[in-house]
Amino acid sequence: MWAKTIQWTGENALLIDQRKLPDREVYVKIETADEMFRAIRNMLIRGAPAIGVAAGYGVALAAIENCNKSYLKEKIELIESARPTARNLFYATSRMKKLLNRDNISKKMFIEEAIAIHEEDKKLTESLGEHGSKLIKNGYKCMTICNAGALATGGIGTALSVFYIARQNGKDFTVFAPETRPYLQGARLTAWELKKNEIKAVLITDGAIPWIIKSKGIDIILTGADRIARNGDTANKIGTYGLSLAADKHDVPLYVVAPSTTIDREIESGDEITIEERNPEEVTHCGNKKIAPEDISVMNPAFDITPNHLITGIITEKGIIYPPFDKNMEF
Amino acid sequence: MWAKTIQWTGENALLIDQRKLPDREVYVKIETADEMFRAIRNMLIRGAPAIGVAAGYGVALAAIENCNKSYLKEKIELIESARPTARNLFYATSRMKKLLNRDNISKKMFIEEAIAIHEEDKKLTESLGEHGSKLIKNGYKCMTICNAGALATGGIGTALSVFYIARQNGKDFTVFAPETRPYLQGARLTAWELKKNEIKAVLITDGAIPWIIKSKGIDIILTGADRIARNGDTANKIGTYGLSLAADKHDVPLYVVAPSTTIDREIESGDEITIEERNPEEVTHCGNKKIAPEDISVMNPAFDITPNHLITGIITEKGIIYPPFDKNMEF
Repeated sequence: MWAKTIQWTGENALLIDQRKLPDREVYVKIETADEMFRAIRNMLIRGAPAIGVAAGYGVALAAIENCNKSYLKEKIELIESARPTARNLFYATSRMKKLLNRDNISKKMFIEEAIAIHEEDKKLTESLGEHGSKLIKNGYKCMTICNAGALATGGIGTALSVFYIARQNGKDFTVFAPETRPYLQGARLTAWELKKNEIKAVLITDGAIPWIIKSKGIDIILTGADRIARNGDTANKIGTYGLSLAADKHDVPLYVVAPSTTIDREIESGDEITIEERNPEEVTHCGNKKIAPEDISVMNPAFDITPNHLITGIITEKGIIYPPFDKNMEF
Repeated sequence: MWAKTIQWTGENALLIDQRKLPDREVYVKIETADEMFRAIRNMLIRGAPAIGVAAGYGVALAAIENCNKSYLKEKIELIESARPTARNLFYATSRMKKLLNRDNISKKMFIEEAIAIHEEDKKLTESLGEHGSKLIKNGYKCMTICNAGALATGGIGTALSVFYIARQNGKDFTVFAPETRPYLQGARLTAWELKKNEIKAVLITDGAIPWIIKSKGIDIILTGADRIARNGDTANKIGTYGLSLAADKHDVPLYVVAPSTTIDREIESGDEITIEERNPEEVTHCGNKKIAPEDISVMNPAFDITPNHLITGIITEKGIIYPPFDKNMEF
């Protein structure tokens, strides 16, 4: 049932090309670290936990190419430069870097570590779903943003794992999915995943989020996260900040759902998070169609920061953390 | 310089096909009331004041076809059914209905009334610009939503008229234009108009609105309006409500710019405004490209209501009205 986001064949990685969904399910074989770098940068694969798993396999591929410390270091740096915001990418590469400190290294070590990161991610997402699903009640109108699903992880998703486990437990509810321009992960990926898993989904535009929250009476909002600061400030897909303002205005609980690997203990607050600015063409085009005049200036931040006071709780594999986050995240 | 949104040739109307902008400037000849009805419903022409002007000419075309009271009444009802939210449409048809009360009617009367509505709209938009432009200072970062420009009126625009007059007066500023899905009036029309008139424009996605307001320090926000209730509650393009929440959070003044014909004195508050629900295909497609899975449910409200307490002022042709709106709109 779940999308096969990343598969490891023993020698290379198979990734579903998320840019082609929902029209076509195309799997791309990734055979080198450079190819994995490009797959991450060009968003063939996306979603913070999935990027972390992919980065692990990217280093494993480098080790298969040439299991030499300086070569591996160079490729790790390359992979780290693919996208700046997702914490999970750096979590995966930091585990790989630790292996580099050993006297003797082998490609087997790097492959096994990449597989371990993937397996852990799978288990983590199931735990997220177990903890979060208790919050979902029959008849609930839920909302999410972007795609924090199986496609965004090595497992069953972050925010969407909650819906999947709640559905398995027989609960009946509806999920409103904003399309999430410019990359349309909501329309293309979340709507597709929810339908595949027989969950009632309603697609809306991003501009409609606050009005739908108000007029339809949304009961709960679940989002993923790309990086969480020690104080709970959360970087997530652009639009999450506005979603959190509307949730706050209408007293709708908003939970961030993320494995604890998304928490960056080295930063105090969201002010320290680098926000990736992506290609203007994502905004001036939709699919291949140009939708704006020539030479128009564009700002295209891929993420925004939701301040901790607008977050009801953070659901990790260890349970639900409530404010004050800085204190309660000390596990 | 201004777009030729609606031209009356003496016998028929020429409309710029707004669905084809910015790629192509195509003018469509509208020769019957039925054609005008379809042009409004299918958004060949859009924007509340422009819809009002078009509706006037639609009735004039009906009078040319058959200047018979029952025929005209039927066509007025048809045109009124084209779109439910814009107040200006009903303002125009109510003026036409008044002519029907006379003993002797002639096509000339209806044509002259339609031209008068158009001429008045032109003058109104210039007054809006004069009043509003005093609020724009050098170096300002401004924001708007959708297209409240020349293309949305019979003149130089509502919200955008303020920028045009400020620019004429030598002021230097930047306008952030959200793309405004699903119909992309911001990307296709506002970006195009602003560039044509040599105003610095920056295109962003709708989800980016609150983050751009916060991170770039927006100084002022100007929106159009489709209908304004007696208490100041304003129906405008979907997304305006979220824009107003972010403006409020960051203490950015938000002004609604609209001719007084947009004010509906028959309704007390926004609760009484019918919100048009449009075709799901606007959301499942972008241009002609399908961007969502088959058979996904969609909600596509075309407008939302911004409550009066989130509006700093309403700029009409008579000046700037400040709260309490119900009292101060009594002119």
